[in-house]
Amino acid sequence: MAEISVTFPDGSVKPFDQNASAKDVAESISISLAKKAVSARFDGELVDYEAPLAHDGSIEIVTADSEDGLKVLRQSAAQLLKTVLKAKYPEINFGEGTADEDGFFVDTDKVDGQVSVDELDALASDMAKLVKNGEAINREVVDKAEALNRVNGDPYQTQLIKEADEDSVVFYNIAGVSVLGDGVQLPKLSALKHFKLLSVAGAYWEGKSSNPMLQRIYGTAFNNDADLQADLKRRQEARERDHRVIGNDLDLFFVDPKVGAGLPYWMPNGATIRRTIERYIIDKEVNNEYQHVYTPVLANLNLYKQSGHWEHYREDMFPPMDMGDGEELELRPMNCPSHIQVYKHHIRSYRELPLRIAELGMMHRYEKSGALSGLQRVREMTLNDGHTFVAPDQIQDEFKKILNLMVQVYKDFDINDYTFRLSYRDPENTEKYFDDDEMWNKAQSMLKGAMDDLGLEYVEAEGEAAFYGPKLDVQTKTALGNEETLSTIQLDFMLPERFDLSYVGADGQDHRPVMIHRGLVSTMERFVAYLTEIYKGAFPTWLAPKQVTIIPVSEEKHGDYAEKLRAEMAAAGIRVNVDRRGEKMNYLIRDAQTHKIPYTVVVGDSEVASDSVSVRKYGEQDSESQSSADFLKLVLDDIASYSREA
Amino acid sequence: MAEISVTFPDGSVKPFDQNASAKDVAESISISLAKKAVSARFDGELVDYEAPLAHDGSIEIVTADSEDGLKVLRQSAAQLLKTVLKAKYPEINFGEGTADEDGFFVDTDKVDGQVSVDELDALASDMAKLVKNGEAINREVVDKAEALNRVNGDPYQTQLIKEADEDSVVFYNIAGVSVLGDGVQLPKLSALKHFKLLSVAGAYWEGKSSNPMLQRIYGTAFNNDADLQADLKRRQEARERDHRVIGNDLDLFFVDPKVGAGLPYWMPNGATIRRTIERYIIDKEVNNEYQHVYTPVLANLNLYKQSGHWEHYREDMFPPMDMGDGEELELRPMNCPSHIQVYKHHIRSYRELPLRIAELGMMHRYEKSGALSGLQRVREMTLNDGHTFVAPDQIQDEFKKILNLMVQVYKDFDINDYTFRLSYRDPENTEKYFDDDEMWNKAQSMLKGAMDDLGLEYVEAEGEAAFYGPKLDVQTKTALGNEETLSTIQLDFMLPERFDLSYVGADGQDHRPVMIHRGLVSTMERFVAYLTEIYKGAFPTWLAPKQVTIIPVSEEKHGDYAEKLRAEMAAAGIRVNVDRRGEKMNYLIRDAQTHKIPYTVVVGDSEVASDSVSVRKYGEQDSESQSSADFLKLVLDDIASYSREA
Repeated sequence: MAEISVTFPDGSVKPFDQNASAKDVAESISISLAKKAVSARFDGELVDYEAPLAHDGSIEIVTADSEDGLKVLRQSAAQLLKTVLKAKYPEINFGEGTADEDGFFVDTDKVDGQVSVDELDALASDMAKLVKNGEAINREVVDKAEALNRVNGDPYQTQLIKEADEDSVVFYNIAGVSVLGDGVQLPKLSALKHFKLLSVAGAYWEGKSSNPMLQRIYGTAFNNDADLQADLKRRQEARERDHRVIGNDLDLFFVDPKVGAGLPYWMPNGATIRRTIERYIIDKEVNNEYQHVYTPVLANLNLYKQSGHWEHYREDMFPPMDMGDGEELELRPMNCPSHIQVYKHHIRSYRELPLRIAELGMMHRYEKSGALSGLQRVREMTLNDGHTFVAPDQIQDEFKKILNLMVQVYKDFDINDYTFRLSYRDPENTEKYFDDDEMWNKAQSMLKGAMDDLGLEYVEAEGEAAFYGPKLDVQTKTALGNEETLSTIQLDFMLPERFDLSYVGADGQDHRPVMIHRGLVSTMERFVAYLTEIYKGAFPTWLAPKQVTIIPVSEEKHGDYAEKLRAEMAAAGIRVNVDRRGEKMNYLIRDAQTHKIPYTVVVGDSEVASDSVSVRKYGEQDSESQSSADFLKLVLDDIASYSREA
Repeated sequence: MAEISVTFPDGSVKPFDQNASAKDVAESISISLAKKAVSARFDGELVDYEAPLAHDGSIEIVTADSEDGLKVLRQSAAQLLKTVLKAKYPEINFGEGTADEDGFFVDTDKVDGQVSVDELDALASDMAKLVKNGEAINREVVDKAEALNRVNGDPYQTQLIKEADEDSVVFYNIAGVSVLGDGVQLPKLSALKHFKLLSVAGAYWEGKSSNPMLQRIYGTAFNNDADLQADLKRRQEARERDHRVIGNDLDLFFVDPKVGAGLPYWMPNGATIRRTIERYIIDKEVNNEYQHVYTPVLANLNLYKQSGHWEHYREDMFPPMDMGDGEELELRPMNCPSHIQVYKHHIRSYRELPLRIAELGMMHRYEKSGALSGLQRVREMTLNDGHTFVAPDQIQDEFKKILNLMVQVYKDFDINDYTFRLSYRDPENTEKYFDDDEMWNKAQSMLKGAMDDLGLEYVEAEGEAAFYGPKLDVQTKTALGNEETLSTIQLDFMLPERFDLSYVGADGQDHRPVMIHRGLVSTMERFVAYLTEIYKGAFPTWLAPKQVTIIPVSEEKHGDYAEKLRAEMAAAGIRVNVDRRGEKMNYLIRDAQTHKIPYTVVVGDSEVASDSVSVRKYGEQDSESQSSADFLKLVLDDIASYSREA
């Protein structure tokens, strides 16, 4: 009988029978290991635990409690879901169906209507029944011709089989239902006790919008109930903060992949928030001596060749447009080259420095469709961008000014949970960076000195600077736990060289400025996503799409008074409406709370008689009476103070 | 000897000698006609007056005082300019050089530096000398080989000769200098007495930005001095109003064709004006119950296929971008499909109508590079766009509301010189239009009725409606005399059909809304160009980039007081600076007037002593003293009232 050589992680080699499985190998090491094991990596690939290894190779045993073990568990959950679906709907087609980093999913295409979200519990119970029955997962190696026959015209499975590298493919048969595999399986179904089906959504076949939209069923699975419950709780909390969920509930924005993935539509509520932020930040910047401009989102491709973006950043850029007259136009991926055009439009004197050019600059970046997420990851974005052109000895002062402005802005938005991160060049590999040792040393110590002077805490990260200069990042976390950069101050020695920028010094000679790229509040898209999450949708009054809603107890008796109040408040610039739907008072008040409106005002007989209002603030249970004049002043003060306490 | 048959405009035919010229034909009609004539159209083409006609054809004699006559005169002016340039710079190369609708031009490429604008008078005097000397214009028919030899490597003339349809080309020899022709010539140079060389500018060879930039010399010519002087006066007036000239003088914007033709960069001054207008118009619209949104500039091409833009408007659209995953993205040429997405995002009820969606919507249109002009004709533009969705019986009320808003806005901008134009379908060809007779009749009479109710004067234009509905245009004129549309209200029966829009009526049934497209102040680009021209750059205080400039008599003695004033005014939201350049007072005051700053404030000893200011309003000769508190109030009132009187 033929033998194979199996190499262990410690480098030792041992012969096994050709039909030996990962289980046989594990048992040869230790029976207790073999019991905890569910799979192995053989030559780097996960393999079914009890299938023959069949050739020489190196092995690592995969235990249930490892990351790979969890993956195998979830692949089995996906397979089991397909099994019960197939049993229930014999005509169903399957796209992908396997583990992902967050659980598992199965893409389905059902001719006769969709799988309903209400059906998930029943499907889960079908799955649990098979687990309880102790059904085996039978591995079947099937040649392609037979495999095509088995999937019976399912277009996706047919494609998968035809595209498979091997001559045969693997099916798994559970309780007599055989389904094409999509990843290796547990040796026993009995380990699959702690799982949940979560939701349904649409997903394009192969992730391409030109392909049919399938229905994706999401679930998750763990080795024990504690982990499962912790995950479900985390999901629930994230859901409550998730800007995509709140964005839908409060009608802030939507994205329709059919019209354009990653291209959000800002509905009136979201647009009001965005506009308020835009005006706030522009006014703040203008008061801090920034000169705001508008520059085009398109430019000749040559501009991005000169800037280096085309060479180094091309895969994030949109394809150039051939205009037919020799011109190629490109949607800008960044605004810096545009602001350099503004700088270069005049001869600049040292008296003009620091020269601060700012813009709400729209940019386009080609993010992979899988990476897109609500307003957080988009393909069209408007950056609160600014570029300061400074003389080298002005770096520290300007850096401090920007930091001070940033901290003021954070305060106004009640942003407190962030960390500063200073990125330097790698001192061991200085040749990887823009070649000016003196500039680097000076600039890095200026940034550090500024942070120390301002008494700010920060992390230092050697080797994380960009090629062209050191930087400061402000890091925050999203509801889903991803780290995001909220603000950046980035020095740049390179672009001034590439564009041959200069200013006339006090000595009458030409000098090279340094550029500082900075974004205070990131893109409007990402910032509104972030704010939505930290506020859980309860925007402070100055940002709230609707600030006050007035409910007359009786439209007939109190409607005129409500309208008078509304007109007075609207004339003062307050976003206010009268709710005339005439539903039950409790319903209307609850509805205003659901929409997280900062002030709900009820007016009835006594309010009309005394020119007063009964006010309930968002999140409070009780109402308070006050004169309508006092209330107007209260709201205006609230708006002017950017207060988060309504 | 061979004969040719010449057909006259009246249809009569007469034989002539084959060598007969247009002049011979003219003389056969009348000697006085022959004297006034300078050329002829032979088979529709202009021909040299004294050159043999050579074949049968129909003739129209061209006299000096006709449009064609003026064209021939200007072609000769261009040819004469080339002659004197060639005499002065034997190595000079020529691109195009002929008449245009506004005079004539010659494109030149001189190895050793450019033709200076200061040199134009000397060149004109060289031209006048040849005219005075009574030089003849000698026509020379030259075969291509010899022609290539003559132009001696001039790359543009070489290309022109190689591309010529005939085997031979025409040169004109004046005073021994022979230059390739570019249009037929006067029979005698003596008619060319009233001309002027005007300016120089850059122009790409063949109008393509990928080709070399040549230097274009502009001039004009007339048959008599009165016409020439009238034209020069008109040019001077247009220049004083031309937004491109003012835009440069006041540093409002620039366009750099190398970075992108038709893609303006708004400098801080222009951006301030634009931002002020944008906030004004958004606030106005929000107060008038428009719901402002932000929608993406990109969408899947399918959206524009569904809307019909791709079918009917493609040549004005940018090329689609192939995203590689089957998606083609398109820069939107209009915002209507985007606003339709907003409408369709919810099920709409009759209670929500009229539903008004508005946006400062950026769009891209592919204008030919020759049509581009400053901010007036651009390729990237931001439209003050709005779409109202109405029930059919709401058309008239909504139309009136829009008109009222429009008239209010015009008043605030002091716009008075415009005409209303109602466009109906052609009653003789109703089959060319969207097929709903009742809708058309009702809508047209609603629009007319609304205009009459509001007492507005208007012109009615039958047959000028769009395919999809009647409209109202508001027409104005640019400094260069071109008619432009400032505002539009356009009914649309078609898009609601194409996108299957509906609302739930009071009857619980689905109904089809009508869409009203409307722009109050056109695009930001066109509107600022227009305002610049009507204000001649003297923007009213509320729009002026800088509203107040404060000049201390002595920086040392009055600088602190100036700064105190500045800080007070800035805190009140006024755009104010202190001019600390320390130049002579008269120079600084004149400079403030040149920059058309509404208020120039001088502070010296007496102002510091009495907490007052000495104020000079833009365009006035005298200053006035007032307390600084009164002055602050004056400026704030001026801003709040949108007054054009500083």
